[in-house]
Amino acid sequence: MSKSTGLLEKRLGHEFSDRALLQQALTHRSAGNRNNERLEFLGDAVLGGVIAEELYRRYPAASEGKLSRLRSRLVRRESLTDIAHALDIGQYLILGIGERRSGGHRRDSILSDAVEALLGAIYLESGFTACKACILALFEVKLTSLPEVAFLKDAKTRLQEYLQSRQKALPEYSVTRVSGEAHAQFFKVTCVASDVEVPATSGEGGSRRQAEQQAAERMLAQLQVD
Amino acid sequence: MSKSTGLLEKRLGHEFSDRALLQQALTHRSAGNRNNERLEFLGDAVLGGVIAEELYRRYPAASEGKLSRLRSRLVRRESLTDIAHALDIGQYLILGIGERRSGGHRRDSILSDAVEALLGAIYLESGFTACKACILALFEVKLTSLPEVAFLKDAKTRLQEYLQSRQKALPEYSVTRVSGEAHAQFFKVTCVASDVEVPATSGEGGSRRQAEQQAAERMLAQLQVD
Repeated sequence: MSKSTGLLEKRLGHEFSDRALLQQALTHRSAGNRNNERLEFLGDAVLGGVIAEELYRRYPAASEGKLSRLRSRLVRRESLTDIAHALDIGQYLILGIGERRSGGHRRDSILSDAVEALLGAIYLESGFTACKACILALFEVKLTSLPEVAFLKDAKTRLQEYLQSRQKALPEYSVTRVSGEAHAQFFKVTCVASDVEVPATSGEGGSRRQAEQQAAERMLAQLQVD
Repeated sequence: MSKSTGLLEKRLGHEFSDRALLQQALTHRSAGNRNNERLEFLGDAVLGGVIAEELYRRYPAASEGKLSRLRSRLVRRESLTDIAHALDIGQYLILGIGERRSGGHRRDSILSDAVEALLGAIYLESGFTACKACILALFEVKLTSLPEVAFLKDAKTRLQEYLQSRQKALPEYSVTRVSGEAHAQFFKVTCVASDVEVPATSGEGGSRRQAEQQAAERMLAQLQVD
């Protein structure tokens, strides 16, 4: 490698014994076939699992939808790029000539992919528990500075704001089924956003409000709104 | 719980010591607030991580794109529903009255969600290694019967077939950058599918063919073609 990786490993909280693996994790595909793409696939998956568990434990009352939303916030590219900068990964990257000349070591996608690849490499070398400890240390600040779940806007509000900001018609909710005894009713609701070209979504729950929130959550997912 | 879960636990390869947790994993949201949605979120994440690692190890030469494709094949709903049937989960499900009357214990989405929730519960109770062992045992047949990676059609072929089957114009590829020395060239390619309403995609690689494959892969992802 072009320079000593001691500081990088210190920041990662992991000293690599397999130096070739570390090198591979830092190698962009522009620099050859033994690059970090497969490690990135692995690291992305491990990261998703670790963050999911951590959120599950930290937010015992959060719904699945909120947990998913918090997770995408933590593992999205912007977040990984922040971590790449904290690790100062750019200077260790191994890039092809073209990428190097065009500033690839500063490109967000290359930086964030390298973070995932490093996590994949740590996982391969030291297993789940060690990799989890590195991930939690790297993400500690982000995990503790997440907005309180209670303050995150609910799905219906976010869907409405999303459509309004694009001058689209507001979504319409309709109850399509009510069943169960009076003390344990169950609602099915449909959400139609007629102004955007996506299918209607449905939601279910023990109250009309809960069913609407789920339908809105699914509409947001379809629209790929974070 | 309405019936003994001994056989289910045997099939899962895990005996629950926390009976309330097992009950929660089997409880659909229609049956109350203490249901399996959060466990499903957790199980989905752990499953994704375990399958990613297993594919990484089984297919040392497969590209990231191929690994992703194999993984979505394994963890998609149809696949999880097969496993739900093998476990005979339906008879153990705890459903609200409405869902029960309308045949919810046979619904694919409810069955596949319960598989993920059970995996999440095993993970919580016994940790990563134990959960991984259960997952690999449950998925063994599917893992060994995956099509040989070499036989999976490449991205350009699949994109072409997809568009042809829908009477759409074929995609067009163009090289937008070539850089690097003669012995280590680097290509950037754009893929335009003018007949479907999605943005152009780009791909990179050490050869024109490789760059085109990546651009096609990304186009397929955009079109949500498996």
